[in-house]
Amino acid sequence: MNVLTLSKEQLLAQHQLLRRTYDDYCARGLSLNMARGKPSPEQLDLSNAFLQAPASYISQGGLDARNYSTPEDLPETAALFSELLGIPKEYILIGGNSSLNLMYDTLCRMLLFGKAGQRPWVEQKDRKFLCPAPGYDRHFAVTQELGFELITVPMTPQGPDMDVVEELVAQDASIKGIWCVPLYSNPQGICYSDETVERLAAMKTAAPDFCIMWDNAYGIHHLYEPVPLKDIFEACEKAGTLDRVFYFFSTSKVSFPGGGVSMMAMSPQNRAEALRHISIQTIGSDKINQLRLLSVLPTPQAVRDHMERQAALLRPRFELVLSTLERELGGTGLASWTSPKGGYFVSLDTLPGCARATVELAKRAGVTLTGAGATFPYKTDPNDANIRIAPTYPPQDELRTAIDLLCVCVKLAGIEKLLKEE
Amino acid sequence: MNVLTLSKEQLLAQHQLLRRTYDDYCARGLSLNMARGKPSPEQLDLSNAFLQAPASYISQGGLDARNYSTPEDLPETAALFSELLGIPKEYILIGGNSSLNLMYDTLCRMLLFGKAGQRPWVEQKDRKFLCPAPGYDRHFAVTQELGFELITVPMTPQGPDMDVVEELVAQDASIKGIWCVPLYSNPQGICYSDETVERLAAMKTAAPDFCIMWDNAYGIHHLYEPVPLKDIFEACEKAGTLDRVFYFFSTSKVSFPGGGVSMMAMSPQNRAEALRHISIQTIGSDKINQLRLLSVLPTPQAVRDHMERQAALLRPRFELVLSTLERELGGTGLASWTSPKGGYFVSLDTLPGCARATVELAKRAGVTLTGAGATFPYKTDPNDANIRIAPTYPPQDELRTAIDLLCVCVKLAGIEKLLKEE
Repeated sequence: MNVLTLSKEQLLAQHQLLRRTYDDYCARGLSLNMARGKPSPEQLDLSNAFLQAPASYISQGGLDARNYSTPEDLPETAALFSELLGIPKEYILIGGNSSLNLMYDTLCRMLLFGKAGQRPWVEQKDRKFLCPAPGYDRHFAVTQELGFELITVPMTPQGPDMDVVEELVAQDASIKGIWCVPLYSNPQGICYSDETVERLAAMKTAAPDFCIMWDNAYGIHHLYEPVPLKDIFEACEKAGTLDRVFYFFSTSKVSFPGGGVSMMAMSPQNRAEALRHISIQTIGSDKINQLRLLSVLPTPQAVRDHMERQAALLRPRFELVLSTLERELGGTGLASWTSPKGGYFVSLDTLPGCARATVELAKRAGVTLTGAGATFPYKTDPNDANIRIAPTYPPQDELRTAIDLLCVCVKLAGIEKLLKEE
Repeated sequence: MNVLTLSKEQLLAQHQLLRRTYDDYCARGLSLNMARGKPSPEQLDLSNAFLQAPASYISQGGLDARNYSTPEDLPETAALFSELLGIPKEYILIGGNSSLNLMYDTLCRMLLFGKAGQRPWVEQKDRKFLCPAPGYDRHFAVTQELGFELITVPMTPQGPDMDVVEELVAQDASIKGIWCVPLYSNPQGICYSDETVERLAAMKTAAPDFCIMWDNAYGIHHLYEPVPLKDIFEACEKAGTLDRVFYFFSTSKVSFPGGGVSMMAMSPQNRAEALRHISIQTIGSDKINQLRLLSVLPTPQAVRDHMERQAALLRPRFELVLSTLERELGGTGLASWTSPKGGYFVSLDTLPGCARATVELAKRAGVTLTGAGATFPYKTDPNDANIRIAPTYPPQDELRTAIDLLCVCVKLAGIEKLLKEE
């Protein structure tokens, strides 16, 4: 039933029915949370081997990992990530437990020291950063905190709208970079097309120190057959822009969030420059935790098998969300959504102007969703339409209740809007 | 035998003897290292329980430490450090594996954002930092990298020369802080007197955003009866300067270097400000590693017992160094040294102009020492006299050989200098 074509009387009748259903939910005193992209306890149970001691505290290279070493350690951790992600080993630096921290620090270095001999960004007061949206709120927060004006770029099913990106970066040297989650983007689950990757690599930028922040957070987090992603380094090398890319990854959603191993990869020149500063910042990262990773998942195939076991837990949750959305909202004209093939989120668009009201309705009935607007720069969705659904954490029965309620709220908010417009 | 009173002929005779001894050492093809303040493998063996899984992955507060949390976790880790070091719990933030990283980031925040509403330090081009020397080369390197002019302050047996410090900071608002290792300082093992702590707390600073970087790295690393350290927070609170202090500590030399837990402590206002930025920089630190610490050493007394077992391994090494220095160099007039009651180093002063030559002689004979000058800003010891001895890492028989050789080199370099001056 396409709600958009209903008469006022029909809308009022629908509204009354929905209101009753909604009140029933409210009376149940629910307290459910679909706000955060957290793994479920069952997923974490799959990773309990990471709690244990590594097979040995002596590294493959004969290093006693219990003692001090250098920021370049461990080479075997870099080798594992290299094979797993198809990145040259000599591009990789291993970090601590947080790839977000590596991103933040990378931008701080640009601010304080500049990139490859260019002027430090702090000296450029009107600096800007491109934020494809809907996107990851923590990315946007980092560049906001570091004094960038956030420029929203629309997303398309192939990635950021490259016509917009190319035009902006060609003209404005104060645009210093772009945030990218190229595979199963947060929150839409969009995978960048080959053409998008090629255009990002090849585009002319007015800023000589333009940075692509390539956060491949979900690079191995497939729900079905892996979606292929074009090699950004290869594309950039071909285009002569190898120094443009900073690539990030972590095992936060492989082993434990906050207890994993992060990495960044970049051109040899960028790596040498980063290493020069990082060697002053710290003596080295936690190598024992790296050995734990290597003990439990010594090969790329072992990692993939482990991720397949996690996917087996996630698939039913995603399918429950998508089938419920289709059943409850399909053909109503009140919402559209994405059907991700990996990652941690489903993205839902309500009628314009209804996201905030929907989230508020859900909250009053006891279901916490990611705040409306959170997926846009400055937490402001110009259409007030986007809602991020995080189906990974709640138990399946709670997820079922939460998503059922969400659909009621979407319809209720949508119909209330239509009634107001009458 | 006071070498300084010898005639030229006597010096020549001594030189010939020493040269023969030195050549014998060279012929042995030694390869020994006394350069770095690293724990020995025997010390690390005492910590092998830290490799294991924590008793539970559920925290005292009921948090599943395997999942995401916040930068304020875990409160029980803060509580342990609070009791151990006598710091109010609400001053503490737990970091990652590196307190040096916390120091670097703290100064970066001042550079980019300023302190408590003051102007960001990047806007002040001629910024300076006080470096009591001899001191820790990595401290000096951090402030050098971050664009500070390094001002050397002499050390006294009570800590930094406070007459010099007070005069400098009272006049010059571009002096933004001072590095302090208040207990068993690196490399001299000096412990700050109550008066030094009080004067640091009470002194008038021209800069309203002056920072004391209080790196209590060896705060529980006693070799004998603990040397008491006056409470800097208490002294500052009394003086109305509580926002002046940033206090750092880690378990790098309690459990594993690079595999431990770091912390910083500061006034509630400074903590709130730091937390605001850190919450953007990272989602949180590695809580599982915190639980490992809490599992192995759940109480301050357990920590102290563990450190006593480490001290039992370290005492004979320090005593070997000191007795050898006394036996070989005592009364010669060629050297003076400190007798630390804790920490990781012994500091040796040769005749002026002889440190570099001594280190070079040792190196040619196969013994690597910390580079001469490393303990001063810009790696330049104005007297070319100071040598840092790190007795913790080598096995005791190697240490014996290395320190014997070092004494030969000190005498040889000293006598060669005296002969040149004849």
